[in-house]
Amino acid sequence: MEPVDEADPWDRLLELAEAGDEAELGRFFSSLEPSEAVRAILRLEPDHQEMVLTGLNPSDAADLIEDLPDEQAADIIESMEPVDAAEIVMEMQSDEQADLIADLNDEDAEAILQEMKPEEADEARSLASYADNVAGGLMITEYFRFEESVSVGDAMDEIQTRSEELDEYFSRYAYVVSGWGRLVGVLEVRDLVLCPREKPIADIMAPSLFAKAQAPLDELKNFFENREFAAVPIVDTHGRLVGVVRSTSVQSALAKRSEQEMMRMYGIVGGDEIRNLPTLTRSRRRLSWLSVNIVLNIAAASVIALYIDTLGAVIALAVFLPIISDMSGCSGNQAVAVSMRELSLGIVKPFEVFRVWLKEISVGALNGIALGLILGFVAWAWKGNPYLGLVIGGALMVNTLVAVSIGGTVPLLLKRFGVDPAVASGPILTTVTDICGFFLVLSFATMLLPKLL
Amino acid sequence: MEPVDEADPWDRLLELAEAGDEAELGRFFSSLEPSEAVRAILRLEPDHQEMVLTGLNPSDAADLIEDLPDEQAADIIESMEPVDAAEIVMEMQSDEQADLIADLNDEDAEAILQEMKPEEADEARSLASYADNVAGGLMITEYFRFEESVSVGDAMDEIQTRSEELDEYFSRYAYVVSGWGRLVGVLEVRDLVLCPREKPIADIMAPSLFAKAQAPLDELKNFFENREFAAVPIVDTHGRLVGVVRSTSVQSALAKRSEQEMMRMYGIVGGDEIRNLPTLTRSRRRLSWLSVNIVLNIAAASVIALYIDTLGAVIALAVFLPIISDMSGCSGNQAVAVSMRELSLGIVKPFEVFRVWLKEISVGALNGIALGLILGFVAWAWKGNPYLGLVIGGALMVNTLVAVSIGGTVPLLLKRFGVDPAVASGPILTTVTDICGFFLVLSFATMLLPKLL
Repeated sequence: MEPVDEADPWDRLLELAEAGDEAELGRFFSSLEPSEAVRAILRLEPDHQEMVLTGLNPSDAADLIEDLPDEQAADIIESMEPVDAAEIVMEMQSDEQADLIADLNDEDAEAILQEMKPEEADEARSLASYADNVAGGLMITEYFRFEESVSVGDAMDEIQTRSEELDEYFSRYAYVVSGWGRLVGVLEVRDLVLCPREKPIADIMAPSLFAKAQAPLDELKNFFENREFAAVPIVDTHGRLVGVVRSTSVQSALAKRSEQEMMRMYGIVGGDEIRNLPTLTRSRRRLSWLSVNIVLNIAAASVIALYIDTLGAVIALAVFLPIISDMSGCSGNQAVAVSMRELSLGIVKPFEVFRVWLKEISVGALNGIALGLILGFVAWAWKGNPYLGLVIGGALMVNTLVAVSIGGTVPLLLKRFGVDPAVASGPILTTVTDICGFFLVLSFATMLLPKLL
Repeated sequence: MEPVDEADPWDRLLELAEAGDEAELGRFFSSLEPSEAVRAILRLEPDHQEMVLTGLNPSDAADLIEDLPDEQAADIIESMEPVDAAEIVMEMQSDEQADLIADLNDEDAEAILQEMKPEEADEARSLASYADNVAGGLMITEYFRFEESVSVGDAMDEIQTRSEELDEYFSRYAYVVSGWGRLVGVLEVRDLVLCPREKPIADIMAPSLFAKAQAPLDELKNFFENREFAAVPIVDTHGRLVGVVRSTSVQSALAKRSEQEMMRMYGIVGGDEIRNLPTLTRSRRRLSWLSVNIVLNIAAASVIALYIDTLGAVIALAVFLPIISDMSGCSGNQAVAVSMRELSLGIVKPFEVFRVWLKEISVGALNGIALGLILGFVAWAWKGNPYLGLVIGGALMVNTLVAVSIGGTVPLLLKRFGVDPAVASGPILTTVTDICGFFLVLSFATMLLPKLL
C-alpha cells in the first residue's frame, strides 16, 4: 500500500541518523527543498535533530530553524551546546532570532547570548523584550535607513554594497531619519535610480505612515488590509525608527495565531504538540487539560446523583442522559464557532452580548423544537409512553436554547474579561449545559413520575 | 458600559439604512476604512446591504465585495438587479470576479454575464471553470505579457500606459511568450529601465519557473515556501501562459481554508454562517449537522438499553455514563487536533496510520491510567464499594486508549479515502467511543454484578 517514492527518503534519513554521521546527515538535508527539510526534521527524535543542525553549515541551519514551528525550534536549540547554537542564531533574521530567544528558557538564552557578538546580542535582547503579537515582536532590523542629509548617490552605493552581503535585507523601501533617529520619510528603492546622484534624499522622500512598537497584531492587520503596502516602519514612544514590519510577517503571524487557536479549542493547551515529542511531555500537557475537565464532569454529573430515586424508578431515563448531554454540546459548539469567527472578523464587539443572544435564541428555538420532536418521538416509540417522550423531548428543547445562549455569548464575555475564549468556552459550555440538561430531564421526570411508571 | 465611539457609527448606519437614502449611505461607506466597511456591511440586513452597493460607485462597490467573505458577497450580488450587479462585477479583479461568479447560482451568474462586455464575460467564464483551490482558480489575468520579439522600449511604454489605467495590475514581473502563447521567460519590470530601449526583450529575459493550471493549493504553498517569489506564472496543458498566481493570493487562500476547516470541525458544515443571515437559513444549515448527530447519538445510546437490567440493579452507574462519554471525547479530540495539524504541516502522510497509532497508545495508556484512577477513586469513595471503582476506573482507562486510537488515526484514514477529516472525524470519534465506553462500563458491571449489589 505504501507509495515507494514517499516512504524511501524517510528510511534513508533514519538510517543516517542511526549511523550518527553528522556530515552525511547535513548533506542529505542540504539536498532537500526547505519544506521537505522541515517535514524530515520534525520526524526525527530530539537527539537526531541536534545532529542534523550540527551537520549543516550555520546559515542553512538558521534557515531550517526559521521554518520550524516556534516551540520545536526552541527545543532543538536548547539541546545544543551554546557555542554551536550561537553560530546558528547569529545567522537568523532579527525577528526570528528574537522570537527564538524569547522562547528559550532564561539560562539557555543567556548562555547563547554570551557567545554572540556583543552588539548583536544587545539588539537581540532588545527585540526579544517585545511580546510576540505586537509590532515590536514582528519587526526586522534588516532594512535601509539613511539620515536626511545623505545624497542619492551615497544611498545607492550603500544599498548595493549591503544587499550583496545580506540577502535577508528588506529592500523595497528605504527610510529616512533625522539626526535624532526620528522617522521623517520614506522612498521606494527603485525610484533612486531615476534621480540625480547629488540630490539629498530628503528632497525626494515622501512622508511615511508608521506604527508604534506596542501596536497589537490586529492593528497591523487592519493597516495592511486597508493599504497595498509591503511594509510599515515602526517607531518607539519618542518617534524614533526602531524597525520595519513586513506585510508577510503579519500574514504569517495571523496564520499562526488561528492555528494555535484551533489547537487550544481542541484541548491542546499545555503547549504545542507534535508526535516526535517525548511521550511523557505529551501525556503531561494533555493531562493538564483533561484533569480540569474530569473535575468539571464529575461536578456536572453529581446533579444526576441528586435524582437517584427518580432514575431508579424510570431506568429508561439513563439511556437519554448522554444523548441530551452530547446534543446540547453540539448545538452550543456551533454557536461558539460562529462567535469566534465573528469576533475574529471584528463584526461583533465583546460588549454586544445581548445582540448575539437575541440572534441565537431564535435559531435555538427552531433547532430545539426540531431535535426535541425527534428525540421525544424516539423515547415515546421505544417505551410506548407519551409522557416519557414529553420529558425527554421537552428537556432537549429547553436545553438547546440554553446551549446556544451559552455558546454564543460566553466567547464574548470571556474576551471582555481578558480570558482566552478558545480555551475556556468549551469547558464552560459543556459544564453548564450538562448540569442544566440533567436537571431538566430529571426534574421533569420527577414532576411527571406517576405517569412514567 | 458601551464605549460611545464604537457604538455610534453603528447607530448612524442603521438610521441611514432605515431612512433608505442610498446616496447618503454610499457617502457614509466611502468615508470608512476598508476593514471598517466590511464590518459595517456585514451587520446590515440583506435589503440594506443591497442599498449600500447601489449607493456606492461601481469601483468602490467592487473593492468592498472583494473584501467580503465569499458566500456573503454572492448573497448580496444575487439579490441585486443583473445590470447593476454586472457594473460592479466588471470592476473586480479577475480572480475575485471568477470566484464570485462560481459562487452564484447558475441563473444569476448567466444573467450577470449577459450584461458584461462579451470578451470580459468569456474570460470570466473560463476562469470560473477552475476549482477554487487549484492554481487556475487563484490566478489573475491582470499582468504584463509580451511576445519575445517586442523591444525593451515598446514594453516599457506599454507598461507605463497600462499601469495608469489599471491600478490592480501585478507589476513586479513581466512574462514573455512565443508566437503560440507559450511561456518562454520572465523579467523584473524594474530591470527594464537599465536596458537599451532597442533590444528585444528575449535578450534580457530569464527562464521562468511555472505551475500548471490544475496544480493544487498545497503545491503552490510548497512552491512559495521554498522560494522568495512574489508570483508564479500559470500555464495550460499546452504550456501556454494563462495567468499569474501571486504569493499573497496563496496565503489568503490558505488562511481561508484553515478558517473554514475550523468552522466545519465545530459543526458549521451546511455553509458559512454570519448572524446577519436569515434565522431560517441559519437554523436549516445547523440542523443538517445536528440531525446526523442525533441519529448517531441514539444509535450509540442504544447500547445502554441492552444492559437495562444491570443498570436497574446498580443505578449509580447512570451517573458515570455521561462522564465516560465526555472524557473519552476530550481525549479523542486532542488526538484529532494533533493529527489534523500534522497532516496540514505535511509531517505525517495519510498512509502512516500504524505509526500514529503507536505514538497515540503510549500517551493514551498513561492518560487512561491517570484519569481512570481519579474517576475510579471518586466512584469508590462515593459508594464505598471498591468494585464500583474498579468497573468505572477500568472502563475509562480502556476507553481512553480506544479514544486516542480512533482520534489519532481516523483523520488519516478519512483523508486517504477522500473524505473531509474536519467534518467527519468528530462524529465518528464520539459515536465509536460512546458505544465502546457504554459497553465497557456495563459489561464489566454485569460481570462483577454480585460484588456491586
